[in-house]
Amino acid sequence: MIETPYLLFLGDAPDMLAAKVAIGIRDWRPENAVGQLRLEGCGADLGLTDMTLAEARAAGAKTLVIGVANRGGVISKEWKKVLVTALEEGFDLAAGLHNLLRDEPDLVAVAEATGRALHDVRVPEVDYPIADGKKRRGKRCLPVGTDCSVGKMYTAMAMERDMHERGMKATFRATGQTGILITGDGVPLDAVIADFMAGSVEWLTPDNDEDHWDLIEGQGSLFHVSFSGVTMALIHGGQPDALILCHEPTRAHMRGLPEYTLPSLEDLRDTALPLARIANPACVVAGVSVNTQHMSEDEARAYLAEVEERMDLPATDPYRFGAARLVDALDAL
Amino acid sequence: MIETPYLLFLGDAPDMLAAKVAIGIRDWRPENAVGQLRLEGCGADLGLTDMTLAEARAAGAKTLVIGVANRGGVISKEWKKVLVTALEEGFDLAAGLHNLLRDEPDLVAVAEATGRALHDVRVPEVDYPIADGKKRRGKRCLPVGTDCSVGKMYTAMAMERDMHERGMKATFRATGQTGILITGDGVPLDAVIADFMAGSVEWLTPDNDEDHWDLIEGQGSLFHVSFSGVTMALIHGGQPDALILCHEPTRAHMRGLPEYTLPSLEDLRDTALPLARIANPACVVAGVSVNTQHMSEDEARAYLAEVEERMDLPATDPYRFGAARLVDALDAL
Repeated sequence: MIETPYLLFLGDAPDMLAAKVAIGIRDWRPENAVGQLRLEGCGADLGLTDMTLAEARAAGAKTLVIGVANRGGVISKEWKKVLVTALEEGFDLAAGLHNLLRDEPDLVAVAEATGRALHDVRVPEVDYPIADGKKRRGKRCLPVGTDCSVGKMYTAMAMERDMHERGMKATFRATGQTGILITGDGVPLDAVIADFMAGSVEWLTPDNDEDHWDLIEGQGSLFHVSFSGVTMALIHGGQPDALILCHEPTRAHMRGLPEYTLPSLEDLRDTALPLARIANPACVVAGVSVNTQHMSEDEARAYLAEVEERMDLPATDPYRFGAARLVDALDAL
Repeated sequence: MIETPYLLFLGDAPDMLAAKVAIGIRDWRPENAVGQLRLEGCGADLGLTDMTLAEARAAGAKTLVIGVANRGGVISKEWKKVLVTALEEGFDLAAGLHNLLRDEPDLVAVAEATGRALHDVRVPEVDYPIADGKKRRGKRCLPVGTDCSVGKMYTAMAMERDMHERGMKATFRATGQTGILITGDGVPLDAVIADFMAGSVEWLTPDNDEDHWDLIEGQGSLFHVSFSGVTMALIHGGQPDALILCHEPTRAHMRGLPEYTLPSLEDLRDTALPLARIANPACVVAGVSVNTQHMSEDEARAYLAEVEERMDLPATDPYRFGAARLVDALDAL
């Protein structure tokens, strides 16, 4: 639906956490990213070639993807100039912001005049049902986090890649803009109307072969008061057979909530598992996924060994060290 | 905003549970309900005078309120004929369904032609913020249920009435169509976009006097897989100081989910309180509210005594026996 390859727009993202969308595309569909476009003051860098719009067009880019997710999702004035120019120079635009491209009259006017497309991947395109809670065939795995942005999507992506390499049946199920931009479909869960959240997750993870695994992209955290309701709907709509606990050990406080400290992995296990068993009494915690990007390799390995011992669960950083131990755990269920 | 008094439309509601909206208006603003209008096969009866549209107009009714909440919230063809006639006979219409009055071209056309108003109280009228989790001044109480439709709104309404009779500062905060139709404002929480649910509850229960209580209307249940995400957002957005556990002891299974049994009051306490303490570490469970409508008075009193003993908490049916014991518990905090 969205024409590839992309030029990834990083705008004035203050840091790499804000560039989650672009990083996900680079890491999971690198063939789709010809370069990056950054504004003055941008604190993010994907390690891709910095390109002007004209350079990226010459390199074959067809769509400018807004690769940053700023708080509240507003399209700033600084961005607008670039977006208008991109349309004029022949790019389609794709974004997953709350502030829709289609709600900006100037973008709509230029897109119409130039015949370009505006893709708002955050907008639900389906009338989702209310969840009925009926048990579905096939298996489902859901990563849940001690916080937002701790690596839940990467965990599911890495597990899918490993499962495919083993010839297992597995499907990554996108529930956010990054996942949808990467895979081309999914449910933009944080934009779904409250009553239909769990139903949209049921719709996304339907009956399947008994030996098929859905790897569901997680959202938010039960411990993040801004978004915990979204996480709850994933746990009950997804009726997971397996949870993966996700954690980033160097985080000083909950993302965007300076007054809130992170829970322990034990807190997360003891909170998430009983809730998951409401929808699926057979659910287990299968492993721990640790985002060790801010640790040396020695620190990371020592931390993972300590977590394994403490939690009596396989623990890995699936992005850094591979997802094999987590997939082994699912395979053994 | 909505002109009173009302004629309450019960349609073809299969049972009284489906007529929750109309029952709420009758019980908490009886002066606003001149009568009821029922279609053939209607299984609900408010005990109000059955009226034709013409009779209700003659009795002074200004708005026809759709007093039933059917699963999925669709306006059926059977209803449509009555609604069109009502507009033609001079009624405004008010509803809290997912299927909006304003999305029905025939209703819009007739309303425009006759100069009548269509009130969709379910539609959010505010751009709610993302929750920031900051501690707010004043006190908040949230009823949480073992299931949907067990009496959470009645509990909050009854507590507000009792607190006002004592001269305490208290405000019922509506989070659903019934509450909004009764009080005239509130947040239609189940129609809010997922990311803004908790923020809308923060917006609804702002900073207040230290001795002021918000009595927040509950929604769904942490144990109801269709709507648990909405409940979670209320618990974290409302940052309650006190939870009231709500239960209906004769329910055979979770409402609309025949495969799911109800949790115990202990399960509810042990699940809801740790989650509430994420947002407000001082939160306590203050009491138990039991919906005893399907029990004799002797049965009800025996059950309440047993619950008090077992849970070591004040227990009452606030609708049947008054909310005084629950208000005493808040007052003692």
